[in-house]
Amino acid sequence: MNQAFAIGIDIGGTNTKFGIVDQQGKVLDEGEVKTTSFPTINSFVEGIYKQLQPLIAKAGKENIKGIGIGAPNGNHFNGCIEHAPNLHWKGIVPIADLVSKKFELPCILNNDAKAAALGELHFGAARNMKDFIMITLGTGVGSGIVVNGQLLYGHKGNAGELGHTVIRPNGRQHWSTGLKGTVESYCSATGIAITAREMAQQSEEPTLLKRYSAAEITSKVVDECAEKGDAVAKKVYQFTGELLGEALANFVLFSAPEAIILFGGVTKAGELILEPAKKSMEEHLLTAFKGQVKLMFSQLKASDAAILGASSMVWNLKTDEQPD
Amino acid sequence: MNQAFAIGIDIGGTNTKFGIVDQQGKVLDEGEVKTTSFPTINSFVEGIYKQLQPLIAKAGKENIKGIGIGAPNGNHFNGCIEHAPNLHWKGIVPIADLVSKKFELPCILNNDAKAAALGELHFGAARNMKDFIMITLGTGVGSGIVVNGQLLYGHKGNAGELGHTVIRPNGRQHWSTGLKGTVESYCSATGIAITAREMAQQSEEPTLLKRYSAAEITSKVVDECAEKGDAVAKKVYQFTGELLGEALANFVLFSAPEAIILFGGVTKAGELILEPAKKSMEEHLLTAFKGQVKLMFSQLKASDAAILGASSMVWNLKTDEQPD
Repeated sequence: MNQAFAIGIDIGGTNTKFGIVDQQGKVLDEGEVKTTSFPTINSFVEGIYKQLQPLIAKAGKENIKGIGIGAPNGNHFNGCIEHAPNLHWKGIVPIADLVSKKFELPCILNNDAKAAALGELHFGAARNMKDFIMITLGTGVGSGIVVNGQLLYGHKGNAGELGHTVIRPNGRQHWSTGLKGTVESYCSATGIAITAREMAQQSEEPTLLKRYSAAEITSKVVDECAEKGDAVAKKVYQFTGELLGEALANFVLFSAPEAIILFGGVTKAGELILEPAKKSMEEHLLTAFKGQVKLMFSQLKASDAAILGASSMVWNLKTDEQPD
Repeated sequence: MNQAFAIGIDIGGTNTKFGIVDQQGKVLDEGEVKTTSFPTINSFVEGIYKQLQPLIAKAGKENIKGIGIGAPNGNHFNGCIEHAPNLHWKGIVPIADLVSKKFELPCILNNDAKAAALGELHFGAARNMKDFIMITLGTGVGSGIVVNGQLLYGHKGNAGELGHTVIRPNGRQHWSTGLKGTVESYCSATGIAITAREMAQQSEEPTLLKRYSAAEITSKVVDECAEKGDAVAKKVYQFTGELLGEALANFVLFSAPEAIILFGGVTKAGELILEPAKKSMEEHLLTAFKGQVKLMFSQLKASDAAILGASSMVWNLKTDEQPD
């Protein structure tokens, strides 16, 4: 009996992961390359083709139904990565077209957070949900919004930039967008490191954070200090969680989701960030919404989630397609 | 040849308007009753039945396909008005059921802002749009969000409470919800009156607003003063528009609409509020969204819009139905 597989590719600023996935979300085979080791997009496509060839041969070329790609600033409507600040290929990169031609397979692109939301929808915590919001808390803050069982694309395909909504008018200026007081300015790993530097500097109580220079304080350091019980490091998460919760309340009032699913490196902080986020979200909700929305972490393994989500697009070509 | 008509009913805190509407949005006949003159919901249903009987007879009962109702806190999923602060019928009112039984016709309920959005979608400025947001700026601030050609209901039917999103953390406390710094606290007619009182009191420059006691300053007074060229009254709209624009930018980043359509009494201020709102919205958007979203006033006559929107639900029973 013939089986059906899809290739899922997750392009990140540093690493690109790929896998051969079946319709049940089982990863048959996977691999990884350094994104940065390919100076041009053409060399990148050649590179992953070379890596994937043996895996494709093993699964049987005739069984592979298509390729799904999740990438920063990936536009589902035109198949192009558009001006991605976190990738070294600049401008508009027609990646779906290039991959499709090289592999001789249909190729669908989406942005990384939308791909992760699809992974959650098909294989994760949102399997039985029609309305949820996926928030990716990593170097940046991304989001994938599912309404009525479908990804929300909006008029031009770029709906769901919740990381760039403002929660502190005239607040901290974002290092790259220039916008002030956005969710990403505070709740991303980068934002957490900035908060930690500020708090370490201002703190009168002793803190492990003071053992590091400002430049050495990363979100990883904050995580380590908090794990050791450092009060100031914990306060960094308390503050971050409170702000995140305020933002989540605004999102809930927009699309009334069944759940908000948090994903990405920042969620390693666990209850230190989840508990204040939950409390603050509830406090900022209208009565009718209180206690109605599940706030949870993703159930997918971080290493697989993006590949799964990307691969799932192949099976949903018809239902997810929303051309302008 | 038989014609097809729908009854549209717009229930407001003070007045209830109704009309017999054809599929092209032509209002055949219309009427009005004082909502407050009916102490119970049953007397209200009897009252509008009595008023509508001659209009139904004129159109031909067999030609009437159903009844659509727009009401504050109207829940589309269960046909009930739920705890509407602006209506004197308290608790949960199963109005769709009561009306359907009395009139012996199918009856569909929605909240007033969602009904207005449907009116705009079928007969107004959004006729060719799949993604837009309708913001009603009246005594309160309501919203109806259309994504991919459908009203956004969310998990429990109450999506689109954008008036209650926070734009000024720890800002002005809302008189009824208790939430601080929400859009409605500032950008509703009530909020505008409060801003005007504050500005009149604090202003060192002469202003017509000072001729009124605080209690006398309503949004209508602000409107009149601004029309006479009063600088402080104009500043009230400048401030309100700027805050509204900030909120709109957040909404745009969520659903990437083609347009945001403003509707309701506050829009009488015209360019005085539209211009600062536009400028501020653009300033708070990510580059990719700048210049992409039309910000406009509704093209529907205020008196007809809600009736049209309510009636349109009858024709869209299948496509708009999204049971939980």
